[in-house]
Amino acid sequence: MEPVLIAGEWREAETPTGAFQAVDPTTKAALPEKYPVSGPSDVRHAFDAAERAVVALSEVSPETIALFLEDYASRIEAQADALVERAARETGLPPEPRLRSVELPRTTSQMRQGAAAARERSWCRATIDTKANIRSMHGPLGGPVVVFGPNNFPFAFNSIAGGDFVAAIAAGNPVIGKANTGHPGTSRILAECAHDAAHAVGLPPGMVQLLYRTPPDVGFTLVSHPSVGATGFTGSRSAGLRLKEAADKAGKPIYLEMAAVNPVFILPGALAERTSALAKELFDSCALGAGQFCTKPGLTLVLGDEWGEAFFAEVTAHFEKAKAGTLLGAQGPRSIAEGIEVLVRHGASIVTGGRVLDDGRYAFASTLLRVSGDAFLANPQGLQTEAFGTVNLVVLAKDVAQLVAIAHTLDGSLTGTIYSDTRGADDLIYARLGPVLRRRVGRLLNDKMPTGVAVTPAMNHGGPYPATGHPGFTAVGIPASLLRFTALHCYDNVRPNHLPAELRDRNPTGKMWRLQDGEWSQKDVGV
Amino acid sequence: MEPVLIAGEWREAETPTGAFQAVDPTTKAALPEKYPVSGPSDVRHAFDAAERAVVALSEVSPETIALFLEDYASRIEAQADALVERAARETGLPPEPRLRSVELPRTTSQMRQGAAAARERSWCRATIDTKANIRSMHGPLGGPVVVFGPNNFPFAFNSIAGGDFVAAIAAGNPVIGKANTGHPGTSRILAECAHDAAHAVGLPPGMVQLLYRTPPDVGFTLVSHPSVGATGFTGSRSAGLRLKEAADKAGKPIYLEMAAVNPVFILPGALAERTSALAKELFDSCALGAGQFCTKPGLTLVLGDEWGEAFFAEVTAHFEKAKAGTLLGAQGPRSIAEGIEVLVRHGASIVTGGRVLDDGRYAFASTLLRVSGDAFLANPQGLQTEAFGTVNLVVLAKDVAQLVAIAHTLDGSLTGTIYSDTRGADDLIYARLGPVLRRRVGRLLNDKMPTGVAVTPAMNHGGPYPATGHPGFTAVGIPASLLRFTALHCYDNVRPNHLPAELRDRNPTGKMWRLQDGEWSQKDVGV
Repeated sequence: MEPVLIAGEWREAETPTGAFQAVDPTTKAALPEKYPVSGPSDVRHAFDAAERAVVALSEVSPETIALFLEDYASRIEAQADALVERAARETGLPPEPRLRSVELPRTTSQMRQGAAAARERSWCRATIDTKANIRSMHGPLGGPVVVFGPNNFPFAFNSIAGGDFVAAIAAGNPVIGKANTGHPGTSRILAECAHDAAHAVGLPPGMVQLLYRTPPDVGFTLVSHPSVGATGFTGSRSAGLRLKEAADKAGKPIYLEMAAVNPVFILPGALAERTSALAKELFDSCALGAGQFCTKPGLTLVLGDEWGEAFFAEVTAHFEKAKAGTLLGAQGPRSIAEGIEVLVRHGASIVTGGRVLDDGRYAFASTLLRVSGDAFLANPQGLQTEAFGTVNLVVLAKDVAQLVAIAHTLDGSLTGTIYSDTRGADDLIYARLGPVLRRRVGRLLNDKMPTGVAVTPAMNHGGPYPATGHPGFTAVGIPASLLRFTALHCYDNVRPNHLPAELRDRNPTGKMWRLQDGEWSQKDVGV
Repeated sequence: MEPVLIAGEWREAETPTGAFQAVDPTTKAALPEKYPVSGPSDVRHAFDAAERAVVALSEVSPETIALFLEDYASRIEAQADALVERAARETGLPPEPRLRSVELPRTTSQMRQGAAAARERSWCRATIDTKANIRSMHGPLGGPVVVFGPNNFPFAFNSIAGGDFVAAIAAGNPVIGKANTGHPGTSRILAECAHDAAHAVGLPPGMVQLLYRTPPDVGFTLVSHPSVGATGFTGSRSAGLRLKEAADKAGKPIYLEMAAVNPVFILPGALAERTSALAKELFDSCALGAGQFCTKPGLTLVLGDEWGEAFFAEVTAHFEKAKAGTLLGAQGPRSIAEGIEVLVRHGASIVTGGRVLDDGRYAFASTLLRVSGDAFLANPQGLQTEAFGTVNLVVLAKDVAQLVAIAHTLDGSLTGTIYSDTRGADDLIYARLGPVLRRRVGRLLNDKMPTGVAVTPAMNHGGPYPATGHPGFTAVGIPASLLRFTALHCYDNVRPNHLPAELRDRNPTGKMWRLQDGEWSQKDVGV
């Protein structure tokens, strides 16, 4: 049985409740390594070590945290061959370009951005009111952050290396990673790099810990433990909502990134202008990563006129021609089939695809469905069911009023997209649709599919419930993503020698932005 | 029966489930006016009107919102006599200086600060990444904010005029106020001012609505309604946690400001240096507003040596001498008695006070309790029970290690205070205690009692659960308090004519601070 990482040591799980193996999705064959299902005692030890780490962290400088993230990134690059090989084996994702040239560099880039943020410290939004002598900043939570990683990004969203991990660490919190059970071996290699980097720079043991799997009740303990600071979760809505219930009851913050249908509206002028290009763009976005992206467009909305039908025919041709990608695991085809079944039950028709592929791997035929605007409005909830694969439901509305009426029925999504005519012919429709969509999505796009999620400060990978658990935060984009894992720390009349460096008169880095008496400044106070 | 304010009209409650009257706490006599207990149909009408207001708001400028808040503030000043008279009658709080010279100006000042924030717009933290052409800002929630006001600040935290109201409106959201049932008449006069101001500047009807009371199940509907944006609640822990459960289940944000014991540590050097001054300071802070402040110190921690005992004797003398203030209502003496009963049951001894006063008004004797550090550590939960009045529990610890051990057992509080020797004699103790307390409180103070809550940008009137529901937000302090009532709105590749003014290249006010390519700036983009 493979060891877990607790309290700075790779050790045997204590009284595990079971064991599991990863599966190669391209062959459905189990991989040889066995990983433990951790019981309550591993969780207890992890929280004990994390508590000691929290105490020790009050003596650790932001520079050490920055060095850790940079060293970790370098170790990942040094282990790139092993990581790519293992991740490809466990997820079926293509080694090139996806894993080696796209996801791995993105992962190390996030780490280096997190390091830069930790070092420079503007992320904490220091606010200094000199007259009242009240000073505040965002600081660490005072308890570890538990991260549940999803199956679809073995590096960039990994519980022990991805965006939530980086945000939590850069904000000064220990992390307890709960690996995704789809890629335990990848998580283990990453955790080895993290462990070695933490040791090299002198972070406290317990700063970075890894469990592979827990029974559900132990998972609830992870998010509701008296000393947990917060939880970051990326995954399915059903799992997310059960964890949310446990965390909410305990008064513990939990940031969820769950299902979303990411509606794409293509207005009539845009369709008339560039039908073929849009059909290809839509298909490519649906097929990226075999459709297993949180930002995959699941719902396309057009007018059902001759342009709409012509567009639909072109999209259909793309879906028919496509070779289906390999899915991440056994649950992939199952959950896609379930999702499609719900869509059909609520009035959608399958135009192409709709079946599990029986070719030795986990795969599902690329699937396109259609439904009329009238039918959509009769069952707007059921017809927003996510199918996590290359699946899209096209709604053909009878007129613009119906398009807008449909927008009013949409649930919270991560993204919403509007394609419009480049010469302004759609602007009146946009004016009606835009405000309705704005309220329902985290990121509003124009003329661009939502699948790409740039790691840039203005990004919002978030959105209204039920896409996430809180509309005010993003899971991607540094420094904003750090704010999820912080508490607001105010100092009222606190003596200079008891203030953290970030709030003393002298700017600790000379580059940190602070809101001083209402002005953002990089200067020392009083200069 | 007094009318409710729904959809821009003062109208009779529709099928109310009952009626209630305010009570003069100085005489226990009911006031003549009858107010309705609103049933589901009033709530439905209010949400319908709020939904229309949300749609109409996309055409309303921040300038109009600013003018509304300023006009409202002026109308409050014009109605000061009526407001002070009514509030004094309903709450028993002294007209002077408390209501007229302190709380009313604070209330109008918050409104004008909110107006300035709405006009200037830095509050929305616009972030512009020119290379990726991704732009984001905090924007309104897309649904009304429901505000539950507490009993203890009839103006400054009133559901229809106080800090939560101002924050929600300034961020561009309609408000449905649920008046505190202790001061319905005061709320009504305020709502009349608000209604007139909204009409005068042309805000949509449904921007400001007022209900007086609801049965509990209808209250749960208010916080969990499909179209509610978020809730702001200030009040008791039991009511807050029940509303939280309903809101959490529906995935709706709720910001709670509940009970807190606000521990005050007085280190031995400070005691030796200024015993008498500290004893008076502590008593005055406990007695302010008859002890009915969320930031009232409920727990004082000192060493039980001769200095500690001398301090305790002086504090006792202050409590013994004091004339008890009038409490806000019938539940005041009852809940204080209950709180004290819990403290005594867990080992505290009453040194003075401890009884309901029978002098024709709602009052409870100023009460001081004591407990040893050993006894505290045996029952740290029970001994952190809040008694919302002039009540303080002094813990006399046997040594510094025990003082620190006690700090480790403290629940989340709004504030935590450390008094230390002015020449540094306590610095070694502070170094041990400070980090432990930091994790447990929102605002850490030195050498100053926590009762005052300045309305200043760096203020944090918040803290870890169970003092509030989320450690990252403040209920007081503009502009930060606005962020509770916002969603993060990202615009990816959105055409300039579809961007909100705050995110276009041109700075809309010339004064708005925006984070442009990592630099905070007031300039136009590209300049």
